[in-house]
Amino acid sequence: MMTISMRSKTLAKATSAYSAGLSYIDPKTVLTELQIFNGQADGLQCRTLEIFDSFDFAHRVWRESNHMLEIWFWNPDKDGILRRSDRIADTIPGISRFQQVVLHQGRIERFFLDSIKEHSDITVERGVLPTTFEFDEAKAADFEDYPITVTLRTLSEEEATPAQRQQHHRRADGTQSVINDGLFRSNLAADDTDDLIRVAKANNNASSVETVKAKFMVGCDGAHSWVRRQLGFKLEGDSTDYIWGVLDIVPITDFPDIRHRCAIHSANAGSVMVIPRENKLVRLYIQLQVTEHAQSGGKADRSWITPEVILQSAQRIMHPYKINYTYCDWWTAYQIGQRVGDHFSLRERVFLAGDAVHTHSPKAGQGMNVSMQDSIIIVAKEGDSVEQGDGTEVAANLQRRVVSKTHLATKIDIGKRMPSFKVLNQSDARPWHLQELLKSNGRWRIIVFPGQLTQPQNMQRIQKLGDQLGSQDSFIRQYTPSDQLIDSLIEVLTVHAGPRTGVELLDLPEAFHPFDEEMGWDYWKVFVDDQSYHEGYGQAYFNYGIDPIHGAAVIVRPDQYVSWVGEVDDYEDMARFFSGFMRVQDSSKPKSRVVKL
Amino acid sequence: MMTISMRSKTLAKATSAYSAGLSYIDPKTVLTELQIFNGQADGLQCRTLEIFDSFDFAHRVWRESNHMLEIWFWNPDKDGILRRSDRIADTIPGISRFQQVVLHQGRIERFFLDSIKEHSDITVERGVLPTTFEFDEAKAADFEDYPITVTLRTLSEEEATPAQRQQHHRRADGTQSVINDGLFRSNLAADDTDDLIRVAKANNNASSVETVKAKFMVGCDGAHSWVRRQLGFKLEGDSTDYIWGVLDIVPITDFPDIRHRCAIHSANAGSVMVIPRENKLVRLYIQLQVTEHAQSGGKADRSWITPEVILQSAQRIMHPYKINYTYCDWWTAYQIGQRVGDHFSLRERVFLAGDAVHTHSPKAGQGMNVSMQDSIIIVAKEGDSVEQGDGTEVAANLQRRVVSKTHLATKIDIGKRMPSFKVLNQSDARPWHLQELLKSNGRWRIIVFPGQLTQPQNMQRIQKLGDQLGSQDSFIRQYTPSDQLIDSLIEVLTVHAGPRTGVELLDLPEAFHPFDEEMGWDYWKVFVDDQSYHEGYGQAYFNYGIDPIHGAAVIVRPDQYVSWVGEVDDYEDMARFFSGFMRVQDSSKPKSRVVKL
Repeated sequence: MMTISMRSKTLAKATSAYSAGLSYIDPKTVLTELQIFNGQADGLQCRTLEIFDSFDFAHRVWRESNHMLEIWFWNPDKDGILRRSDRIADTIPGISRFQQVVLHQGRIERFFLDSIKEHSDITVERGVLPTTFEFDEAKAADFEDYPITVTLRTLSEEEATPAQRQQHHRRADGTQSVINDGLFRSNLAADDTDDLIRVAKANNNASSVETVKAKFMVGCDGAHSWVRRQLGFKLEGDSTDYIWGVLDIVPITDFPDIRHRCAIHSANAGSVMVIPRENKLVRLYIQLQVTEHAQSGGKADRSWITPEVILQSAQRIMHPYKINYTYCDWWTAYQIGQRVGDHFSLRERVFLAGDAVHTHSPKAGQGMNVSMQDSIIIVAKEGDSVEQGDGTEVAANLQRRVVSKTHLATKIDIGKRMPSFKVLNQSDARPWHLQELLKSNGRWRIIVFPGQLTQPQNMQRIQKLGDQLGSQDSFIRQYTPSDQLIDSLIEVLTVHAGPRTGVELLDLPEAFHPFDEEMGWDYWKVFVDDQSYHEGYGQAYFNYGIDPIHGAAVIVRPDQYVSWVGEVDDYEDMARFFSGFMRVQDSSKPKSRVVKL
Repeated sequence: MMTISMRSKTLAKATSAYSAGLSYIDPKTVLTELQIFNGQADGLQCRTLEIFDSFDFAHRVWRESNHMLEIWFWNPDKDGILRRSDRIADTIPGISRFQQVVLHQGRIERFFLDSIKEHSDITVERGVLPTTFEFDEAKAADFEDYPITVTLRTLSEEEATPAQRQQHHRRADGTQSVINDGLFRSNLAADDTDDLIRVAKANNNASSVETVKAKFMVGCDGAHSWVRRQLGFKLEGDSTDYIWGVLDIVPITDFPDIRHRCAIHSANAGSVMVIPRENKLVRLYIQLQVTEHAQSGGKADRSWITPEVILQSAQRIMHPYKINYTYCDWWTAYQIGQRVGDHFSLRERVFLAGDAVHTHSPKAGQGMNVSMQDSIIIVAKEGDSVEQGDGTEVAANLQRRVVSKTHLATKIDIGKRMPSFKVLNQSDARPWHLQELLKSNGRWRIIVFPGQLTQPQNMQRIQKLGDQLGSQDSFIRQYTPSDQLIDSLIEVLTVHAGPRTGVELLDLPEAFHPFDEEMGWDYWKVFVDDQSYHEGYGQAYFNYGIDPIHGAAVIVRPDQYVSWVGEVDDYEDMARFFSGFMRVQDSSKPKSRVVKL
């Protein structure tokens, strides 16, 4: 597995690298130049934070970021005067345990790097450029073969450092300050990939050239994607004539909603979007009404764009409120281009992800969030890739073979992520958000909702399921390699409908709380939908639309997406579902163990 | 400021060191041997977590620790058979945003060390022993003078390493394992301080001897405190004849409540306390019915105490349930001694803290928790110590000079910590627990609760208070050094009674949201008691017992303890309160700035 990325789009690569490690695809090389600049993507949507939490670092983002709670809309009144017209919640209440936050992309890259270092032996290399690409069609059919050959060249420090990082800027009071200029890598700048490659080839300082053969490759190398060009794929779509400026400043203003996300539409001076950030900063996206400067070919002449010009536009739009700054952290300008690739992969061997295959208006926050999810929907493979194909194929198999009984869990949607509500650990009464139990460690999960276990028929059904899952020839034992633990491929979690004190863990079959000779019983797999002492009542059955008298069972992919809903004792359907893409291992009994949450 | 500590009690020292830095007392040397062993203190009460949060690392403890939610009581029934008799919440619901948790003391020391490193330039030295102490009474009256002289000797690596760390142990299956033996530093072991000092003096390898002169000194050097001995102080109290064994094990058991905190009292085999811990461990405190082994002098012969003996006691007590283990992380044994010092300080120059001045039964969790709080109630000084004395004196001043109007906030108790409920930031609607705004950064706070600002008289009162606080001769300006920011000594926070959208921040006087020429308005000092989008409604006015029509004001010490409650516009009382211990600075105007939460 190899990941090619360029300096202008770094995050998706790290994500891919990480996913690669977790999906057990032999990771060869990850290429990236992970210098942490200012600016770039910053908005993180609630689902992105859920994914970060599955990698165990959402809490770092949550603490450091600015949280956005409310969006205010400003529009001109009948006299053309700017007024508040409406406000809405930034994140729909109840949709997630996280809300939209804003944090400098560099910090997020840091958290990915720390996590990669902690959980894998993947090396993230910087300042390495691909110079040639070959694909051997003859080898593409055999997934054990290596059809990809890429030559890599390591840049010298000097080559790898962008030419323009800082610019002197005149402050309002006439003094000079140095600020970071983002224009050199905005989409108003020319593609310099070929220049970089040519210089690197010519440069005797280039420290090394190497040839990599790979089974798979991911190109997440930005809108100018070199990988996409090698494949001959195209981005399709259009770009507008509007040019937008971006300022990251500590604002000095009497505009009352400067710490809210705002959409400000002036009568005739254009629009501003306000994105309050961490460290007292605010990002302003400012429409520049200067399309006459644009070149006829579409790409704008950028020489006239300065922070002063952008600020003056903001001042016109936000009138009669005043806005100024002393400190500017970063600025840039761009033209909106919304495009999507004509192909996403070559023979399911070479994949494109992120801006390499779709570009967005930055203000919608789709760039970084969608790109990271591109790289994870890859992690949804399990076991041997030859037999499985990717997640899409699994879903197709599912539809062919097993029909879900969606009426049993009316608020759980097949193909969407498993919603999260608080449940209590049966053994110690601690509340957990259900998603906290679904870490990205490559496991499929069967979540059994057996209903109220005080109902004799429910206890009988779960006894029967437990006997089947725990039997020597159960599908879990068939698919789990003999040298791995019984829960390493498919983990069985239980959420019963309470009351907590009416059930004894050890009355449930061992399949629901495996025993290990050294570690004893597993106390971290059975949960209950009940009132907590300090954190309320998650009402999981109600919120999942599951009848506590009848129950349900759910199969969840390793990336938290729901694959199947059925009856508690639909053992045959569960077995049929997994048979669509799993490979039978040898018959040795896998080892059980306790998994600490 | 110097802190003397011994190897057996390390945590309180680190706390003291930290406090010292924050209270601006010139820190000279912190002595400690911070080797992180297994075992020792582990239970953290909710107030301790609140203190950790004021130092910004409670989240690390919260993530890594085991949370204890419920206590189960087991007693013999009329036939002598062990039965569940009752259960209660481990932490009283509503008392704190944290609950009792359990985490290895070594991790907590690590968090303190990381925090000290991040926030100060204090050096924590290890393996350093005091060998002589002198106190010059003539210098004690002048707080600018240095009455304390201590000679320090740095131990060699060999000297500083405890003689006995590990012990071979026979497993149930007959194989051998190595486990950590805590007996060498239990209170059943002899005091070896003098031996260590003698050896260090005689040892030519001792790398250095130094003499330190200090204004203040804290001795938190454990129950055998060398500092206490130099002062001639005594611990008073008694010890029981009972010997308790402690095992940290991964239990293999059919006892159903092994992941709950349990108090198990058998009919006639003694008692066990179960404390579930992190990493699948459980700590068992096990009563050993073997006092005949005790020596006549009170201290027990310890040679017969082994993990097997302790386990066998547990098995007798927990019958008919079975308990065993393969993995033992640590074990020890102790006699309960509950004692308190006859004096706590020498001329308020040399202080004792932690076990040096009070010892407890470990099962009550008072050792580490109370000791850390000893070291913080020291941080409650502000400004110049000459004029202030310690926190006790401040309280005495308070009682002499200013009478609180406690009926204005019926659920806020003078002398207790400020309770915490969620309030929203006026400027961005983000919910915060009020205590999160009260970080341990040395500041006093005036928290103004002006009530509903839609009531004209409330707006008038807060306007009046704002004019007084913001005036050139206000007490805040008088006491704040001219080179420091206006909020660096006394910070003014506001919590109005809502509705949030009925109030504009900039309609409030500048004293409540100071302006800075570079950083603009301060958006992080005005809050509102209102409904949040995602985290409920804190109902702060209701929970503090403050009438939203009338309001109140509260003065909170730097350690979150409440000093005064009065009217919103009791400016004169506030001024009189601070005049009791603050010193007027020169008349230059302090700088304002924005404080990011």
